[in-house]
Amino acid sequence: MTTNTLVEYADASAEVRAVYDDIMATRKTDWINNFWKAMAQDPATLKRTWESIKQIMAPGALDALTKELIYVAVSVTNNCNYCIASHTTSAVKKGMTPAMFKELQAVIGMANETNKLVTGYQVVIDEQFKLPFGAGK
Amino acid sequence: MTTNTLVEYADASAEVRAVYDDIMATRKTDWINNFWKAMAQDPATLKRTWESIKQIMAPGALDALTKELIYVAVSVTNNCNYCIASHTTSAVKKGMTPAMFKELQAVIGMANETNKLVTGYQVVIDEQFKLPFGAGK
Amino acid sequence: MTTNTLVEYADASAEVRAVYDDIMATRKTDWINNFWKAMAQDPATLKRTWESIKQIMAPGALDALTKELIYVAVSVTNNCNYCIASHTTSAVKKGMTPAMFKELQAVIGMANETNKLVTGYQVVIDEQFKLPFGAGK
Amino acid sequence: MTTNTLVEYADASAEVRAVYDDIMATRKTDWINNFWKAMAQDPATLKRTWESIKQIMAPGALDALTKELIYVAVSVTNNCNYCIASHTTSAVKKGMTPAMFKELQAVIGMANETNKLVTGYQVVIDEQFKLPFGAGK
Amino acid sequence: MTTNTLVEYADASAEVRAVYDDIMATRKTDWINNFWKAMAQDPATLKRTWESIKQIMAPGALDALTKELIYVAVSVTNNCNYCIASHTTSAVKKGMTPAMFKELQAVIGMANETNKLVTGYQVVIDEQFKLPFGAGK
Amino acid sequence: MTTNTLVEYADASAEVRAVYDDIMATRKTDWINNFWKAMAQDPATLKRTWESIKQIMAPGALDALTKELIYVAVSVTNNCNYCIASHTTSAVKKGMTPAMFKELQAVIGMANETNKLVTGYQVVIDEQFKLPFGAGK
Repeated sequence: MTTNTLVEYADASAEVRAVYDDIMATRKTDWINNFWKAMAQDPATLKRTWESIKQIMAPGALDALTKELIYVAVSVTNNCNYCIASHTTSAVKKGMTPAMFKELQAVIGMANETNKLVTGYQVVIDEQFKLPFGAGK
Repeated sequence: MTTNTLVEYADASAEVRAVYDDIMATRKTDWINNFWKAMAQDPATLKRTWESIKQIMAPGALDALTKELIYVAVSVTNNCNYCIASHTTSAVKKGMTPAMFKELQAVIGMANETNKLVTGYQVVIDEQFKLPFGAGK
Repeated sequence: MTTNTLVEYADASAEVRAVYDDIMATRKTDWINNFWKAMAQDPATLKRTWESIKQIMAPGALDALTKELIYVAVSVTNNCNYCIASHTTSAVKKGMTPAMFKELQAVIGMANETNKLVTGYQVVIDEQFKLPFGAGK
Repeated sequence: MTTNTLVEYADASAEVRAVYDDIMATRKTDWINNFWKAMAQDPATLKRTWESIKQIMAPGALDALTKELIYVAVSVTNNCNYCIASHTTSAVKKGMTPAMFKELQAVIGMANETNKLVTGYQVVIDEQFKLPFGAGK
Repeated sequence: MTTNTLVEYADASAEVRAVYDDIMATRKTDWINNFWKAMAQDPATLKRTWESIKQIMAPGALDALTKELIYVAVSVTNNCNYCIASHTTSAVKKGMTPAMFKELQAVIGMANETNKLVTGYQVVIDEQFKLPFGAGK
Repeated sequence: MTTNTLVEYADASAEVRAVYDDIMATRKTDWINNFWKAMAQDPATLKRTWESIKQIMAPGALDALTKELIYVAVSVTNNCNYCIASHTTSAVKKGMTPAMFKELQAVIGMANETNKLVTGYQVVIDEQFKLPFGAGK
């Protein structure tokens, strides 16, 4: 079975190009990466995913760089090489210095360690810890 | 087999109390949580883990709140309930507002989604993405 | 810090109620579960998440039950108890029999086992295996 | 230390060949993939693993294609590249169309997202959700 | 939908009782745990799973205690509370002392940390490291 | 942005060389692997990580080989290719035979399977299972 694996701008429908244009305008880039080209095989998926990312990654209570650092933290924990490369690059573009990078990785590493220590010891949650918002009763 | 599961301050050796005191002084708290009480069963582990956390979580190129947000991101991705409760509380103490919390969770959720989309599609890493520092050749 | 953790229908804004109504109409239920009530703390998140779920879980090339089975498979692999309970219930509503449930769990278990066997042995991918759609070159 | 990494049919013992023959007969193929060749280093492991897979993946209450889709869902969630390539190929052989593939990936992605949203918000399980079969009391 | 969730010995078929008897004889216990009672809903699954466990966990090149330690390491990394309780108990029965337990958890924690450090830095594998057996070329 | 990705011995500061020397002395090797060279970009990280590893991996209640087997088990479960190659090599150096390797992988695979079976069935923890040390009440 053959498929068009990545949808290049030149081959894209008007619907897809509209999304590509919005990505480039929002991110101030002049190229489309392979992730979006793969998603573009289904224009509805491309649109929905881009609209979500656009909303979620826009600076808000957290600034854009902080959001990229969080994205890297998840991607490293999940061992996703594409996302690590993509979002580390993005973080650098948004201002991550080598010092920030090293501190970020140190926190990710330590969090993974203590997550497992607490799990292995089956430590009971202290009363003093507040459950996050929306926990329910 | 019975064990002393959590080492209370009152029952702690001088070596362990020294660490407990440093934790409370550094974190400006007057109590020791169950995680540290569990680690204290082996004073060497307690000391090593605390010294690492103390170093890693100190404000630096990244401020203390940003480090907690990263810690929460890893803990949610790893599904560690103790750490989620503990570090969400800590983040609130360090200034995380409800708006920040919601944005944090939205990024964590979206990152987990795109990590898997990229994996399911086996997308090849673009040349333009810079590998992180220390990648090697 | 206190927060409104779950947004009950009675307390919801018109914007949130509109989404709640759509959820109940689409799913043919007369109640809103805790997940949506938690998301509703941020109406934009609620709307975006619901619209995505609605699109993605609608019957298409894959029918609704098959989509729930996949959802359960991911939730079990990720160890998400809320999602396991929620989507197992949903799958039963959509026609999953006990026999289907047991086969589903057997596949999930076996897939997790062979995923790790192949990883531990670092087996090289055979030429004959076609990379998924959108893999890129 | 050197080892025979993959056991080729030509070099296999009668015991291993018997399993290889059964794999090819059951799957209607004329070749053995690297995973089985790796397992074959221990004939007992090869036999046990094949017998389990044969039982579990046989069409039953769930058809063969549905079982492959579940296998892909787990493999993507676990980030196992070998299994993704192997089982995506298998799913295509069993009838997965590009449309099914895209819907499958969309569900996997969304499930990973909502798994984490629910975890980050620590949402309590609703009474109305039925625990799966075999949950115990 | 109601189901018989756990199959008690008293209610079990002869086929299931045969497996229960073998479990108790092999493990030198006089009771069946909830995991096996859940699996027993499908006698074929029960038999296949027990036969695999019996084969895999029998003392061999690795002794029984070492195998339990490995089982705990996987269960902690996967955050599976049932398995952590079950296999930690089993390890204690087979000779794990508190000192061994603490060292085990320390290794699990550290391994999780360095796994992520290496991933975050995208470190390239050194030539000197031998790929495991069965890696293929 | 350019960075010195790996810190070679020849280019290392006295502080870093001191750690490199200790690694080689402790491990009886005459080279430094890429992981340490990457960590060395931040001497404090290098020192802290090495001191932890040195403490944790030293033979104690568990011998050195057992600790490597546990490290491999975690690394396989986490799908960390660098660590799998590195620690499998290390385990071989410390005495892991092919027979041990195969048994190790079989346990890892089976543990991953039963972890998910128990999760999918949401099996309740039996009273008879002792919670690990440090669980708290």
